Amino acid sequence: MKKQFAVIGLGRFGSSIVKELVDQGMQVLAVDINEDKVNEFAGIATHAAIADTTDENTLRSLGIRNFDHVIVAIGDNIQSSILTTLMLVEIGVSHITVKAQNDYHEKVLNKIGADKVVHPERDMGIRIAHNIVSKNVLDYLELSDEYSIVELQAGPQVHGKTLIELDVRAAYGCNVMAVKRGDDIHVSPAADEALYTGDVIIVIGADRDITRMELDLFDDDTA
Amino acid sequence: MKKQFAVIGLGRFGSSIVKELVDQGMQVLAVDINEDKVNEFAGIATHAAIADTTDENTLRSLGIRNFDHVIVAIGDNIQSSILTTLMLVEIGVSHITVKAQNDYHEKVLNKIGADKVVHPERDMGIRIAHNIVSKNVLDYLELSDEYSIVELQAGPQVHGKTLIELDVRAAYGCNVMAVKRGDDIHVSPAADEALYTGDVIIVIGADRDITRMELDLFDDDTA
Ligand SMILES: Nc1ncnc2c1ncn2[C@@H]1O[C@H](COP(=O)(O)OP(=O)(O)OP(=O)(O)O)[C@@H](O)[C@H]1O
Ligand SMILES: Nc1ncnc2c1ncn2[C@@H]1O[C@H](COP(=O)(O)OP(=O)(O)OP(=O)(O)O)[C@@H](O)[C@H]1O
Ligand SMILES: [Ca+2]
Ligand SMILES: [Ca+2]
Ligand SMILES: [Ca+2]
Ligand SMILES: [Ca+2]
Repeated sequence: MKKQFAVIGLGRFGSSIVKELVDQGMQVLAVDINEDKVNEFAGIATHAAIADTTDENTLRSLGIRNFDHVIVAIGDNIQSSILTTLMLVEIGVSHITVKAQNDYHEKVLNKIGADKVVHPERDMGIRIAHNIVSKNVLDYLELSDEYSIVELQAGPQVHGKTLIELDVRAAYGCNVMAVKRGDDIHVSPAADEALYTGDVIIVIGADRDITRMELDLFDDDTA
Repeated sequence: MKKQFAVIGLGRFGSSIVKELVDQGMQVLAVDINEDKVNEFAGIATHAAIADTTDENTLRSLGIRNFDHVIVAIGDNIQSSILTTLMLVEIGVSHITVKAQNDYHEKVLNKIGADKVVHPERDMGIRIAHNIVSKNVLDYLELSDEYSIVELQAGPQVHGKTLIELDVRAAYGCNVMAVKRGDDIHVSPAADEALYTGDVIIVIGADRDITRMELDLFDDDTA
């Protein structure tokens, strides 16, 4: 059977989760105390309900016990977020993810039994900081404190050079895992594959090695 | 010379950017209209200043023209965010990244000359949705609409099996790029490398192939 998700709180964070889950073909119940927000989601979510989720009977009447995963995306009203989470735990929902506003909020949520606590603004701040330190790093996946996979934008400095000429493995200890050119993605590119300005190369390696390589080979301007 | 960053607005998003940039060894000026927020950052940022950034003279007196990249992380007060961005563009700052609250805000920011507009709550909603659809996908990097790199948690189903036995390339068209075991990362693992419960495998492939593989090999429970 398909997994059943419920999202409580349809602000920017909650809305975005509902839409992406629906995009991925999931069944989603969208809940908010605000009627206008719920109406917006009538045509988007599988089901939409107006409810104050701090009320246990209201929650039970939604059949919330039967959902595989409930996301609490109530932010500013910390008390409502905590109360709602408490009810969900008591009702016995199996997976509960909650948005926290600050460290105190997170501590309480963990203590009362939230399975996962997320900090969208903080976590996105960290991602953005990574992306702006270098304009050549388009995106990244942190594998550990020291290892990452990064997407690097190829510029004039590497244009026309093959991977063997650039010798990123020997010189920097990094591995080129894929090259993206327009809509094409070449996984495990051959050593004699040449790079062109505008290509995006996907590299795995230690952070300091990637940074060194990026400064040597990809940092074309000083801005 | 080291790149110079300025972050205006020290809410959760702006604070997080300041801290991560400092962690990465960058020079960061932290600015807010609120004295308490600025005091919090006196010991963290390279410099910290109390200023209303909607005032052009105030902005100029900060020497903002000389920064390589300015991030406007004023959120709720859309008018202040827009005015600040407008001033930065007029003063001639070379890279300006701005946090938007909604689509209207984004449109205005793009029109007046912001180089990049970000939506932390929305973007993090999308990331979280990806992560909760399957409890085995720990993190991912979207290479294109159709291709991704994902981190999958290995469970009992694959325990003791070698990569050649699992045959993910032929059966699913996916490539295992690395295996993470505790603090060790094995890049380009050999075909006879065995997986163990708790390993994290890093796979590149088409989204639908990864999902198929994940359901067959990694989805150990139904929750
Ligand atoms: N007791 C409650 N029951 C159900 N929904 C609630 C409850 N309290 C608040 N909400 C809803 O939670 C949603 C998110 O609240 P929040 O205050 O975080 O708004 P926001 O700042 O717009 O969210 P975001 O930070 O995600 O953009 C709102 O739409 C609000 O109506
Ligand atoms: N004109 C201004 N000049 C300088 N700073 C400002 C100005 N207006 C607002 N700020 C600051 O911007 C910061 C972020 O504002 P916002 O209203 O988005 O707060 P927040 O919701 O806590 O932020 P976040 O969503 O990042 O957690 C606040 O600390 C505020 O004092
Ligand atoms: Ca909010
Ligand atoms: Ca790191
Ligand atoms: Ca905010
Ligand atoms: Ca996709």
